[in-house]
Amino acid sequence: MPDIRILTESELRQSITLDIQAVDIIEQAFGALAQGGVVMPPILSMSIEEKHGEVDVKTAYVPGMDAFAIKASPGFFDNPAKGLPSLNGLMILFDSDTGILKSVLLDNGYLTDVRTAAAGAVAARHLAPDSPDSVGIIGAGVQAVLQLQALSLVRNFNRVRVWARNPERAADYARRMSEKLGVPVETADTAEQCVRESQVVITTTPARAPVIQADWLQRGQHITAMGSDSPDKNELDPEIVVKADRFVCDRRSQSLTRGELRSAVAAGLVAEDYSVDELGEIIAGKKTCRTGDTMITVCDLTGTGVQDTAIANHAYQVTLDRGAGTSITT
Amino acid sequence: MPDIRILTESELRQSITLDIQAVDIIEQAFGALAQGGVVMPPILSMSIEEKHGEVDVKTAYVPGMDAFAIKASPGFFDNPAKGLPSLNGLMILFDSDTGILKSVLLDNGYLTDVRTAAAGAVAARHLAPDSPDSVGIIGAGVQAVLQLQALSLVRNFNRVRVWARNPERAADYARRMSEKLGVPVETADTAEQCVRESQVVITTTPARAPVIQADWLQRGQHITAMGSDSPDKNELDPEIVVKADRFVCDRRSQSLTRGELRSAVAAGLVAEDYSVDELGEIIAGKKTCRTGDTMITVCDLTGTGVQDTAIANHAYQVTLDRGAGTSITT
Repeated sequence: MPDIRILTESELRQSITLDIQAVDIIEQAFGALAQGGVVMPPILSMSIEEKHGEVDVKTAYVPGMDAFAIKASPGFFDNPAKGLPSLNGLMILFDSDTGILKSVLLDNGYLTDVRTAAAGAVAARHLAPDSPDSVGIIGAGVQAVLQLQALSLVRNFNRVRVWARNPERAADYARRMSEKLGVPVETADTAEQCVRESQVVITTTPARAPVIQADWLQRGQHITAMGSDSPDKNELDPEIVVKADRFVCDRRSQSLTRGELRSAVAAGLVAEDYSVDELGEIIAGKKTCRTGDTMITVCDLTGTGVQDTAIANHAYQVTLDRGAGTSITT
Repeated sequence: MPDIRILTESELRQSITLDIQAVDIIEQAFGALAQGGVVMPPILSMSIEEKHGEVDVKTAYVPGMDAFAIKASPGFFDNPAKGLPSLNGLMILFDSDTGILKSVLLDNGYLTDVRTAAAGAVAARHLAPDSPDSVGIIGAGVQAVLQLQALSLVRNFNRVRVWARNPERAADYARRMSEKLGVPVETADTAEQCVRESQVVITTTPARAPVIQADWLQRGQHITAMGSDSPDKNELDPEIVVKADRFVCDRRSQSLTRGELRSAVAAGLVAEDYSVDELGEIIAGKKTCRTGDTMITVCDLTGTGVQDTAIANHAYQVTLDRGAGTSITT
């Protein structure tokens, strides 16, 4: 059997960063999803209630890519009390032609962070106003940081508002991001203010009840909701799904079981077969995107296996070119 | 993050063998499955038709075990023409309390071979006649070898018959296994002869149509069918499911979707909610096993995540005790 390349988080951090190349790669992956030939089975999900833990396994085969990834993402929510991170995980890369193991990417979730933020940039590229004056960020965690960085790769904006449940974390975020982006970042007093004063809003929370209400929305606004990725999460008032001129998601079947569409169906606002466009269909030119200055657009991102396969292939190639990693003979 | 232990196939082969300890460990895993508390989600299955490939991902959390495994098993059926094995795969071990990655077992499917054969021994221990005179093996591949070895750990027998579609492979098997076990192993002219002359029969084929007919069965016989593990496979005449005095499986939901129960339902012989006992329920004493010399018993093994978690924990501990493996800091 061929050698297997082991890549560590530190090697991957040195090789892969959230840049326009990562955004392009994720865009191509979504585009491929709309072209047919992609195989992306439902997420394997295991809930370990007695440990407050869960594990998701995602995968996708994408024609034309050298390899397909299988990603395992455990989340154990008692970990912070033990001084450990809640989330970790790894990606495994298999040759697309032979299924033979090529590489184990011990990224501890780093590549997931990158591909998730990159998807936000892809959504903004296709749906957000061209030149938003202000951006609103809900949440102050890792994705709040990365989503704003990702947005800055595809849109120019003049100011940022942030709101988070913990005001100290929001203030700290504002300080750090002002410095990092060279754009004024200020805290909002309320989520409502944050939403009402922003042309682009990104929600990055693990909320189980809406953090944005439908009547806060403004004409011309774009919202990306990237927080909900499991059947217990919900960031948007379900009314938003029907109020938006365009409600787009990364994967219809996942939005219906793990994303904002799930809540809208549960609220009885839309049927299970409600017609929703996928981001990939817009990228592939099969569906139109923003067609006017007054449209309200919403994109629900749940996180897909094609993103994992795309970023893992990219990371493998970049690290190989750099000579990083350890080869193991089995 | 803690270091991650990388274990290779050669290290695992040096540490783990198909012995009575492996059988006991797999028996305990099945017993745990019947006790409640185990979380074993449905298998994630991805079929890559354009490459004649498929990948299954199995997992199970077992209370009391230090870690849980996620196993990925690709099978690419054009590989032999390329001089590569069809099957490979690996297991990944996560701490049961924190979900943090502990070990990557680069076993290329070796541990699956061991735990699959061990399950056959567990089935025989609880269902086969105490002292079978003769054993019949259908198939001549890796599991034909390992299942007979496994059976020899829990039952004494005087002679073996083997039948395989390819007579040369059957003859070769007979030669090798006679030598290995010190028991006469002879080829049968037909599958029917093999079945009619054996008190214990083990089917180890990837057949898509029955290799054993119901009217070949003999009173007092036990059959283990371990070949069918996907919705397109079928080794037993569906009549056997109803003709057997006891039809037992490793996991009801899997037998119904990937095993012999699936074919019996498809043939209209039993309803989807047909009452079938699980091997673990017998081990746990919740159900009776063989209760007389004339009973016909059948056990359908599809392969379960609890077996993977059990063998991976065992392999991790044994290799750690031996100082094998490579630690990687992420």
